[in-house]
Parts: sequence; structure tokens; C-alpha cells
Amino acid sequence: MKQQDFLDQVRQVGRQAALAAGALLKLNYEKPHELTMKSAIDPVTESDFAAQKTIINLIRQTFPDHGILAEEKMETEVGEGAKGRDSASQEATPTYRWVIDPLDGTVNFAHGFPMFCVSIGFEAAGVMEYGVVYEPLRDELFEAMRGGGAWLNRSKRLKVSGVDRLNEALVATGFPYDIRERLPETLERMGKVLASSQGLRRAGSAALDLAYVAAGRMDAFFEENLKPWDTAAGILLVMEAGGAVSTFTGEPYTIFSDNIASSNGVLHRDIVALLSRKRIIRSP
Amino acid sequence: MKQQDFLDQVRQVGRQAALAAGALLKLNYEKPHELTMKSAIDPVTESDFAAQKTIINLIRQTFPDHGILAEEKMETEVGEGAKGRDSASQEATPTYRWVIDPLDGTVNFAHGFPMFCVSIGFEAAGVMEYGVVYEPLRDELFEAMRGGGAWLNRSKRLKVSGVDRLNEALVATGFPYDIRERLPETLERMGKVLASSQGLRRAGSAALDLAYVAAGRMDAFFEENLKPWDTAAGILLVMEAGGAVSTFTGEPYTIFSDNIASSNGVLHRDIVALLSRKRIIRSP
Repeated sequence: MKQQDFLDQVRQVGRQAALAAGALLKLNYEKPHELTMKSAIDPVTESDFAAQKTIINLIRQTFPDHGILAEEKMETEVGEGAKGRDSASQEATPTYRWVIDPLDGTVNFAHGFPMFCVSIGFEAAGVMEYGVVYEPLRDELFEAMRGGGAWLNRSKRLKVSGVDRLNEALVATGFPYDIRERLPETLERMGKVLASSQGLRRAGSAALDLAYVAAGRMDAFFEENLKPWDTAAGILLVMEAGGAVSTFTGEPYTIFSDNIASSNGVLHRDIVALLSRKRIIRSP
Repeated sequence: MKQQDFLDQVRQVGRQAALAAGALLKLNYEKPHELTMKSAIDPVTESDFAAQKTIINLIRQTFPDHGILAEEKMETEVGEGAKGRDSASQEATPTYRWVIDPLDGTVNFAHGFPMFCVSIGFEAAGVMEYGVVYEPLRDELFEAMRGGGAWLNRSKRLKVSGVDRLNEALVATGFPYDIRERLPETLERMGKVLASSQGLRRAGSAALDLAYVAAGRMDAFFEENLKPWDTAAGILLVMEAGGAVSTFTGEPYTIFSDNIASSNGVLHRDIVALLSRKRIIRSP
């Protein structure tokens, strides 16, 4: 198969999987809460697993040999295509790999706060080639193909914002899961951003935050301690929309990095300067 | 006119005004950004003023003598009904007063972050009788009549969440406009909430945050330094949905209070304990 045909097929499958999983999440989200709470199984976990199963089954139908790196460990449930590759290990990276978060913003989903999405990235030889973030409640499909730009709902080209001064920037962030162990640093960093920007937002879905940076709805985003599936699709969206992605210290970002700083590009130097600055260690 | 007929009319006018202003905001929000930026007048201010004018004109048609307390000062633009009462002063409170925020979440609106709303409250003799928060992008109309419950889109009764443990609570907050002057206290308070709850969200619209507490999408909300029009409608929504509203120290809240703590009720004692606790003043 030609490379272009192959990537077209990747996009078809990725898009279809994101839309199918998103539709399933929306359905479960909108069920009366009293009803779902009666279920013996935790309804959130159930939705999360069902969405992942939908995605993996669709991928396996077309690409039975591709690697999969997904949030939920569920090898036994994947079906006949599973070959025990569905682990989050970094070793023996397969040439083709799908990096999947079936439900980003789980806490929001559980509480009924309407910000969550499906995130799927596709890597070839370690390079992100395609990314899709689907937000089912607003029916917004954010997609990017490496070198092909980033798009909303297949028709609107995405472009990062033009805000070029930090004090006019709207900045998104998230809190690490182990926040209780790193509260002082997290608060110090937030304090810096609060004092230097126009506003800070915390919506609770990193994949969606990155899609919003790509769409120019936010000017920058930073967070620590994310997992590969949280950022795989989003970083391609931002880059293809003209933005920038790095670590807090400005190093190249990989989906295994400890932290991420993303922006519209113009602001990147300022954001990194703010995030990377070492704490002032007072001499005793 | 009978009291009930009068309040029905208030609701009709309030609802109509919120829907009309919201439709106008949505239209302006969805205009291509490049186009609106070409306008000589700041498009955000323009939308804000146009929305307020729409609301006030509709109120004046039915209730020419009611007082108005609104975010934007624009007495000269109000039209023939205006009698110089449209100031934000607390003095000589009229018997009937409409408390209006034509666009809550201005910074979001300006940046294209899709969280903003119209908020209108109606007071009789200092008591909030009717409140409406309209979120035009999702077409969600949150309404409450004192003693009549809180409703979404006229058909779904709103009820606060049943979350009864702080460490399972999703908490909303906002940052005061003068945050740079009160950063340490703000960060300290946030740190406490981050360490004690399941998650903190910052969406950037206080009126919408309160509507979400009423709808059970968030379990609590706190913020400092809000204005009367930010909370007038939202507090009635929360109370009519079974929740609680007070100051940080647990005192009765009025729309002129310096800070607000709101919750599903069950959590209120815990939230207030967290917010009111004095800083430890270290002896020199």
C-alpha cells in the first residue's frame, strides 16, 4: 500500500473510533445519574472501558498488528485481535502504535461537569502522524495529520491565537494526580502564572486543553505528570495549528516527558521562562 | 395585579431578556474573530453593551419604574425609561430591582473559551425573587423562583449533588480581579482546597459556576470580591436546588458581601471550615 493510502486509512479508522467512543460516552453521560448509580459496576469505569473496547476493536479490524498504548489495562477484554501488547510499557516500541485515552476528564464525567473527550494518537516509528480529540457534548472533532494542518469538524482550519503578550494571555493548567505531595511547587508555579497572565483556567481535561490551544481558544497550557495518552493527539494538534510544545525547561517534549508547556508559539519563550525559573533557595 | 400574576410577568420578562441577550452574544461570539477585530470599537465591550441594552429595554417596556443595578454604566443609552437610577450605588434601594450581568465570563468570551452566560436577578424589597442564568452556547436556561424550585430549560428540576465527603467533591473557584494584590491568601486557600477535595475547577464565570452547583455538576464554589450582578441569580438557583450559600466565615450572604461560599448543603460546614480558618500568624 502507498504511504498516503495507508495514512488515509489511519485517519479513517482513528476518526471513526473517536466518534464511536464519543457517542457512547455521551449516551452514558446523559443517562439520569440515579439510574447509572444503581448499577453494580462503577458507571464511570464501565463507560471508560466500553469506550476503549470500541476504539481498540475498530483499530484491530483494520490493523490487527499495530501496537496499542492505552490508559485502561484490559488485555483480556480486547477480543480476538489482542496479542498481549496492550500494556503501557515503553519497551520494544512497535513501528506502528496507537496511543489512546478513551475518556480524558474522568473526574468531570463522573461529576457531570461537561468537559471531557476521547483522545487518539497514531505514531509511526516514534513520530506522531495523526491525532484526534473528539468532544462529544459539543460534537467537536479536532484532527491533525503531520504536515497537513489541524482541522475542526473536517472543514475549519485550526490556527493558534495571535496573543503576543503574556499579560493578555489566557492560560490553561491542570493539577497532577499526586498534588498532595507537590503542593508548594504547584502553587508557586500557579502564583507566577496568575501574576503574569490575563487569566488561568482549569477545565480538567488535558487533551481538550491542548485542542483549545490549537483552536486559539486558549493561548497556552502547562501541566505536570501527564501520561502519554493524555497528550499524544493534542501535541500534534498544537504543532499543526502553528503552536509550540516543549517541557517546562524548553527541551523537546515526548509523550513520556514529566511535564509539558504548550503555547501559540509567540508566547513560548515567556511561558518557558516563567515555568523553568528555579525557586530561589534562600541561604541559611 | 395579584402577587402571583406580577411574579409570572417578572419571570416572562426575565426569561425573554436572558434569551434575547444570550442569542446576541452567541451571534457575536461565533463571528470570525478576524472580522470582529477590524471593528473600531472593542467587539467585546460592544457585545457586552448591546446585550445589556437589550435586557434593559425589555425590562423597561413592562416595568418602567423598576430599579436597575447593572454591570455596565450606560445611563445615557438606556432610552426613554431611564431615570438616572442605573447606577451601582447601594443607596436608596428601590422596592423592585433587577440585578444584571449581560455577559459573565468576559475574558472567556474575548478569548473564545466557550464558557460565558447572561445573569439576571430580580429583587423585591431586598429579597431575591427570581433568577435566571442563560448559557447560549449549550442553550441552557437555568431559572429559579423563590419557593418554586430551580429548573433547567423549563422542564428539568435542578437538584444539588449528594456528594457528602469533601475528598470526593469537585470544587469551583475564581480569582479576584485584584489577584496580584492578594496572591498569598488566594494561593493558600487554593492549596487547602486542592489538598482536601477531589478536584478544583476554574471555568471563569461565577454565575455559571453557581448554576452548575445548582445542577449538581459541581459540589461547591467559592470566590472573593464578586459584584452583585455576578451572584444575584446564581444564589437563588443554588438555594432553590437545595444548596447553601454563605460568606467564607459562614455568615449570611448578601450580593454586597466580600466573598461567597456555596455548596450542595451537606458539604457546607466543611467548606466553611476550610475557607474561614485563619492563617497561622507566626510570632516574630
